[in-house]
Amino acid sequence: MNAKIYVTLKTEVLDPQGDAVRRSLASLGFERVKAARVGKLIELKLDETDRTEAERAVRRMCEQLLANPVIEDFRFELEPSS
Amino acid sequence: MNAKIYVTLKTEVLDPQGDAVRRSLASLGFERVKAARVGKLIELKLDETDRTEAERAVRRMCEQLLANPVIEDFRFELEPSS
Repeated sequence: MNAKIYVTLKTEVLDPQGDAVRRSLASLGFERVKAARVGKLIELKLDETDRTEAERAVRRMCEQLLANPVIEDFRFELEPSS
Repeated sequence: MNAKIYVTLKTEVLDPQGDAVRRSLASLGFERVKAARVGKLIELKLDETDRTEAERAVRRMCEQLLANPVIEDFRFELEPSS
């Protein structure tokens, strides 16, 4: 299985990196960008063919390492390895 | 329009951050993770209702600021603001 994990800051958490992106875009002339948030995309290759097992493992990886539950949310997608 | 932009390292570019994630996961017992790559997810709110215009603008933002074309690929999705 391959996993794509999206880790984003919770809505109520300030995002200085996102604000810097918005300001940089504005200075390049992209003034119609009203907000920017920066998160992480983590792609994993798993040696696991069972979707339920893979889902359980990825959820635990997110909770234990990949996301900080205090300030971040996560979601993920699984697809069979090609 | 809202845009979700996914910036990933090109396949042939080494990813030390991804390797660190893989090793950390292995040390937590997730030894079935064979590879990890870390990219960025950038979410933008655009004051633009025309999809074609938004698409053109986001592509230029990626080329000019959000992705480094030497080492990174990008793709994006647009959806109407709710």
